[in-house]
Amino acid sequence: MLGFMFKQAQTTLTIHAQGRGFTNFTRELQSWVAAQGIQTGVVTLFVQHTSCSLIIQENADPDVLTDMETFMNDLVQDGHPDFLHRDEGDDDMSAHIRMALTNVSLNIPVIHGKAALGIWQAVYLYEHRYMPMRRQVLLHIVGE
Amino acid sequence: MLGFMFKQAQTTLTIHAQGRGFTNFTRELQSWVAAQGIQTGVVTLFVQHTSCSLIIQENADPDVLTDMETFMNDLVQDGHPDFLHRDEGDDDMSAHIRMALTNVSLNIPVIHGKAALGIWQAVYLYEHRYMPMRRQVLLHIVGE
Amino acid sequence: MLGFMFKQAQTTLTIHAQGRGFTNFTRELQSWVAAQGIQTGVVTLFVQHTSCSLIIQENADPDVLTDMETFMNDLVQDGHPDFLHRDEGDDDMSAHIRMALTNVSLNIPVIHGKAALGIWQAVYLYEHRYMPMRRQVLLHIVGE
Repeated sequence: MLGFMFKQAQTTLTIHAQGRGFTNFTRELQSWVAAQGIQTGVVTLFVQHTSCSLIIQENADPDVLTDMETFMNDLVQDGHPDFLHRDEGDDDMSAHIRMALTNVSLNIPVIHGKAALGIWQAVYLYEHRYMPMRRQVLLHIVGE
Repeated sequence: MLGFMFKQAQTTLTIHAQGRGFTNFTRELQSWVAAQGIQTGVVTLFVQHTSCSLIIQENADPDVLTDMETFMNDLVQDGHPDFLHRDEGDDDMSAHIRMALTNVSLNIPVIHGKAALGIWQAVYLYEHRYMPMRRQVLLHIVGE
Repeated sequence: MLGFMFKQAQTTLTIHAQGRGFTNFTRELQSWVAAQGIQTGVVTLFVQHTSCSLIIQENADPDVLTDMETFMNDLVQDGHPDFLHRDEGDDDMSAHIRMALTNVSLNIPVIHGKAALGIWQAVYLYEHRYMPMRRQVLLHIVGE
């Protein structure tokens, strides 16, 4: 396994989030990984924003996503009277906090040419703003 | 430091979690890293599940783990009446939320052939289900 | 893009945290990345402690950091009477919990010789102890 065949690739996925909630982009991720011709390696995901997150959650029962949002909505109060940063509305500061409690980057090993997610795992953009947003997720893969 | 000697390796660690709580697998991680013959690089850990987490915590006082669980148990109510997803019991949805608030992947630089943890750091699988579970943690290392 | 030119580098940034709060080290990160001569790749950040975190947050309005701390202070009670681990004071166990809820490692793609942060993103060390602390952040870059 000497590294003569190592290679890397990068791209940007643009995700159109329909306001607060989850957008499953597992298919787009796997399509891009498959197209790079790397059988063994690791893929890095990174979101270039401070009001949305990357999250891995169950891919089967949509109630999981509903309950996740119920919990986060209860944990991080929109428009909390103690918050100073409120230029863009009640969802401004709460979005930054939600992002800090979840993930800005993820790393997934690549096995047999695919991001090696477990059978119940999907990758979501978790949008925290109320309004529809256009979000950039960087992908980087290295391997051979 | 041209990359003629770059190599990578992957494996799956199987962790037998004894129900909710922490399993320290630092020794298994370091043994595998040491066996790959890579002095300088980076190791990625990824757990293929949605009801347990990877977490780095103190390795000295077991009270830290007890208090961490006390906190999480209070933060994420098992069997919360507002949760819709409850097919597998009171710890079903709470496990998904605990996982979202902690980590599914970790990255640790490799220095002198070891994952470069700080002296107080250990790597744990944090199981969120009540029942004993068999969990898969993927390891990927790249370096030279 | 065959990997004949792949290289990697590592360093340790020492960050002097002035007690609980945020230290922006984006400039130090970008300076080091730029000096490695890697145009395309990925940089890993890893903090070797269990009482501080790495966090990406907004770089514009300092109120965001104030509000983030207001939230965390309310979420994780210092000196909670249920905590057993209190050897080093009221901020001992709460620091470990804050760290578990945020990040110990981050991965950022490198594009055109820079860590590809979004225009509103900065990288902070988030110190959770009251006292000034000297913290070690490991950096690892691989690419070409």
